[in-house]
Amino acid sequence: MTPKVVAGIDLGGTHTKLGLVSDRGHILWRHQIATTDFAEPQTFADAVAALLLQAAERQQMQLVGLGIGAPNGNPLTGTIAFAPNLQWKGTIPMVALLQERLQLPVCLTNDAKAAALGEKYFGAAAEFNDFIVITLGTGLGSGIFSGGRLVYGHDGFAGELGHVTIRHDSNRRCGCGRWGCLETYVSNSGLLTTYQEILQRLQLQEVHQSVHSDAAAIYQLAQTGFGPAQMAFEHFGNMLGEGLALAVQLLRPAAVFLTGGLSQASELFLPAVMDSLHAHVLPIFQGKIPVTPSALPPGDSAVLGAASLVWQQHDGLFRSAVSAPV
Amino acid sequence: MTPKVVAGIDLGGTHTKLGLVSDRGHILWRHQIATTDFAEPQTFADAVAALLLQAAERQQMQLVGLGIGAPNGNPLTGTIAFAPNLQWKGTIPMVALLQERLQLPVCLTNDAKAAALGEKYFGAAAEFNDFIVITLGTGLGSGIFSGGRLVYGHDGFAGELGHVTIRHDSNRRCGCGRWGCLETYVSNSGLLTTYQEILQRLQLQEVHQSVHSDAAAIYQLAQTGFGPAQMAFEHFGNMLGEGLALAVQLLRPAAVFLTGGLSQASELFLPAVMDSLHAHVLPIFQGKIPVTPSALPPGDSAVLGAASLVWQQHDGLFRSAVSAPV
Repeated sequence: MTPKVVAGIDLGGTHTKLGLVSDRGHILWRHQIATTDFAEPQTFADAVAALLLQAAERQQMQLVGLGIGAPNGNPLTGTIAFAPNLQWKGTIPMVALLQERLQLPVCLTNDAKAAALGEKYFGAAAEFNDFIVITLGTGLGSGIFSGGRLVYGHDGFAGELGHVTIRHDSNRRCGCGRWGCLETYVSNSGLLTTYQEILQRLQLQEVHQSVHSDAAAIYQLAQTGFGPAQMAFEHFGNMLGEGLALAVQLLRPAAVFLTGGLSQASELFLPAVMDSLHAHVLPIFQGKIPVTPSALPPGDSAVLGAASLVWQQHDGLFRSAVSAPV
Repeated sequence: MTPKVVAGIDLGGTHTKLGLVSDRGHILWRHQIATTDFAEPQTFADAVAALLLQAAERQQMQLVGLGIGAPNGNPLTGTIAFAPNLQWKGTIPMVALLQERLQLPVCLTNDAKAAALGEKYFGAAAEFNDFIVITLGTGLGSGIFSGGRLVYGHDGFAGELGHVTIRHDSNRRCGCGRWGCLETYVSNSGLLTTYQEILQRLQLQEVHQSVHSDAAAIYQLAQTGFGPAQMAFEHFGNMLGEGLALAVQLLRPAAVFLTGGLSQASELFLPAVMDSLHAHVLPIFQGKIPVTPSALPPGDSAVLGAASLVWQQHDGLFRSAVSAPV
């Protein structure tokens, strides 16, 4: 019998990651394409469908479905709606586009919800019914499990922790058009702004401004012991802790997991997160909420989670797989 | 056949309301006792059990269980743990105390969760899977439904919207020991503090300070058109709107319901709530989240919700009852 496999894709503003995922959560084939190479979602869907069908055939596996994690992906409608980080504008019927080309079940959710599913079914959250996954990158996304189920809310758009107003007197404008959103402090660009503010305050601006222009550079400087870079990560951690405190008091998760590019720098900001979280929650929650990096390899959680959307619905194989040792 | 009835009690710091509730959500008998009359939880449990058994007998109904809504009530352990507004200290095994005396199933949850259950099964939230009930009184409580189920979190203590830090530079100390909690602005005492600050700012303090010493008095003044009292309610509404914005972005409820004493003054602060909520959420949520007073008579929602905890578990009667017209 040909082994079954599900495709998972993590559709990002710059790159899209593709994978073929077994029912045990192993990525058996992986590939990456530049999302920006495709001016239209139709040609993107053409390329994705061709790549997946070809890969499954070469691997001699039966492709049984596709799961998609995408920014502003709406699981209830199967569309991507007005994603500020994508070049395709308006509402894109991504599920319909790919169903048409693959003639297979296609599911879609947003990238942070996909990461939470990945953590639940293939990562460190298997034993938890209540947990939160935070994606740290261009923006701040959150995928919430409550009572063993993903929180979608009334229209599929629950989980916007990145857009809570964390400072009311903020001079930071968010991509959403408002001011002081958590994401303006806790994201790649938020870290950069904080770092530049610190340089300016310390009157080091002239010397350092041209050298360090992205999060990776600030990370490297912090690791070499450069104070302003370390302070920027500490501030990042403080703000993330405050944001998590809001979510913790509403939802009382058993744990919080961090994923996305900046989660790989967590040793620089996790102590600040824990202090700040502790200070901003009720005594009954203090010291009880572990915050740790995801157990999944960087970049894999959304691909795995997207695939699990399909495995969940597929002939019971998945349920037995997740209860068995991997 | 003797008709079945469930007891619901709303255990408060000052008063405890008792009711006998039909499977259709009618309160067939009601009573109130002073919680403060009982120095020990044991004598309180003696009195409650005696009153309920006697009432059921007189009404010729079969008492089949008791549901309790209580501050800091933990549904997972059946205990009331360190409730700041109760005179009984430490952890009180209220479920065990009443089970022993009634020899019937006894369930317990916190007062805001009970109010949310009441709204779901007997109020205006029947059609909603995702909604939030806010209790406005001595404190600010929140009961959250997500995906058709009450959100308990990992240990039963989810739903602490009243204790999110809404102002980081606040001079308001909360009963929980921290500063700037939402509850320090949106509660009876929060309203009073705001009102006194407004009088002081307007240098009206001398004239008015002795006259208006509680929320009810400020309400009456606002209704007569007294500016400072109206401004206090407006500020109350602004802060509540900001707090709701946090919950809305995480949970995307279909609606928010207000209950508790101050919800009866909602005409004075709801316009400010809506403006503030609108300003503090993503465009995709703006104008989509109705905030309205509970459809249940003031004070009934927690009694009804507490009773529904038992009806939910009782021989399927309840499920058929709630799907039928009431």
